[in-house]
Amino acid sequence: MKKHVIGVDIGGTSIKCALVDINGKIKLKSGAPTDKSRGADSVFESIKAVAGAVLDAAEKNNLKVSAVGVGTPGSVDPETGCIAGGAENIPGWKGAPLVKELFKSFNIPVFASNDVTLNALGEAKFGAGRGKRDVFCIAVGTGIGGGIVIDGKVYRGAGDSAGEVGHMTVNLNGRRCNCGSRGCLESYASATAIAAEGAAACKKGGGELILEYAGGRIEDITAKSVFEAAKKNDPAAQAIVKKTGFYLGAGIANIINLFNPEVVIIGGGVSKAGGILLDSVKAAVGEYSLEINLKKAAVVLSKLNLTAGVLGAAALCWQEIEEN
Amino acid sequence: MKKHVIGVDIGGTSIKCALVDINGKIKLKSGAPTDKSRGADSVFESIKAVAGAVLDAAEKNNLKVSAVGVGTPGSVDPETGCIAGGAENIPGWKGAPLVKELFKSFNIPVFASNDVTLNALGEAKFGAGRGKRDVFCIAVGTGIGGGIVIDGKVYRGAGDSAGEVGHMTVNLNGRRCNCGSRGCLESYASATAIAAEGAAACKKGGGELILEYAGGRIEDITAKSVFEAAKKNDPAAQAIVKKTGFYLGAGIANIINLFNPEVVIIGGGVSKAGGILLDSVKAAVGEYSLEINLKKAAVVLSKLNLTAGVLGAAALCWQEIEEN
Repeated sequence: MKKHVIGVDIGGTSIKCALVDINGKIKLKSGAPTDKSRGADSVFESIKAVAGAVLDAAEKNNLKVSAVGVGTPGSVDPETGCIAGGAENIPGWKGAPLVKELFKSFNIPVFASNDVTLNALGEAKFGAGRGKRDVFCIAVGTGIGGGIVIDGKVYRGAGDSAGEVGHMTVNLNGRRCNCGSRGCLESYASATAIAAEGAAACKKGGGELILEYAGGRIEDITAKSVFEAAKKNDPAAQAIVKKTGFYLGAGIANIINLFNPEVVIIGGGVSKAGGILLDSVKAAVGEYSLEINLKKAAVVLSKLNLTAGVLGAAALCWQEIEEN
Repeated sequence: MKKHVIGVDIGGTSIKCALVDINGKIKLKSGAPTDKSRGADSVFESIKAVAGAVLDAAEKNNLKVSAVGVGTPGSVDPETGCIAGGAENIPGWKGAPLVKELFKSFNIPVFASNDVTLNALGEAKFGAGRGKRDVFCIAVGTGIGGGIVIDGKVYRGAGDSAGEVGHMTVNLNGRRCNCGSRGCLESYASATAIAAEGAAACKKGGGELILEYAGGRIEDITAKSVFEAAKKNDPAAQAIVKKTGFYLGAGIANIINLFNPEVVIIGGGVSKAGGILLDSVKAAVGEYSLEINLKKAAVVLSKLNLTAGVLGAAALCWQEIEEN
């Protein structure tokens, strides 16, 4: 009887769950909306329901489940298994005894870590990083996050908060960031920053196509409007994409110089812009990376879409099972 | 019979060698000048002589030697054990079959890596990082280098070139660096940059004490002259130290956000400036780090001086022996 694990991904709008084998193959799936407004207890109930359904189905199919892995907003204290911080959008989530609560329910080992970290692990093990040992994933969405895989294993850091590449300062005296610091990569290259640049361009009287893709309303401009317009050769939109790629590439060069990875994978909503973004990313990576490190480092787009989180949560289980 | 290993550190002016036990205790020492000008063969002969002398002495004392570890300028190809690059100051060193050549001579396992990386490992295992699992060491001297220790083991990267923190861009449109890139930490916070700032201050008519410590000659100003003058309250010197600390601290904050380490250790010649530098480093670390990561991360000065390299080379042996 082959072993399986359950991967759970607590996302902003839905909780995804899957039964996964050691090769990252998904055998069963379930899901539920994330009802954040009702707080931690309600989220726990949803996890128990979706993972419980998969457990039951696995049993019926005679599949042994060895562990449950969970990717969650915020960081998980490696000692206690409680939410350590950074998940302000779910009332009561900070401090919630995630691992203990789920173990009580399932009675098999439970492992948990930050969702962005586990997305990275999923992509590294079963997506664009498959077969590589040292991988950095950067997730570019509303914010910018990241995850580090070293020697094939996720590196979580001393407080489950490694990989915060969005708050790497690339411009010391630059823009003020939400985090209170200055010149963070996130304030230049996130979807939020791209949308703001798009709106600014339209206010200055350029970017007609950006505005068109936003339904004619400046306040509705998103990163997507900018990328769509850029693909149709709107000069203002193309300039924004180029500039974004430049910042992103310089940030990725820092990663390449520091980690000397085999591959850097760009994921998240912004990576959907594809080639037009990747070209300018690669130009800046070439400009800012040390040659010896650049030689080893491929820069690619992510391959997995919505499954990276559950696969990463499953991969965390395999990693922990192997270590213990 | 307790096991021992030999650590060799190929420095710019001398080759150091020591017999080391598993607790990082040095039992025997030897050394020789590094005769770089005569090229790779001459360096090989010196290594064989110093390590050979320690091997013989160990045998006479009935101490078993399990392996030889070597820290070298440049990076070492993890597959072939040859020098992969970055050691231009020794003619013929690039491409030299370091591991093979020494194995032929000693007939016990030989492990090698970059000298800065192994200095970091030595400091992490047996110096200011003793007992910590996730450690980043930054060495601030003529240039700025670094080394990463994860889960108690040195992380070398895909091409033995991880930890190049000196070429992390902190100021995208900033100063041109030797490496061809822009705004690298090294171009703001190395001893070279400090000396240049000192000279510039004197040319502007300030920094009387800086000039005094340099024997009255602007061209002889070093980082040390600046630090000495700062300790005696020269305002221009103190402003330079403060600015250096600010840049260094912002760079270290990037490390803290990315790695979430337990400790960042500052070593190299510049760390000798002590408290006056560390205070401004810590202020910038506080300003640029994420709170959750900052909580876990101590920022301290290195403890080992000249022995970090040989101890790190020995620690590499213990790590490799344990893994295989």
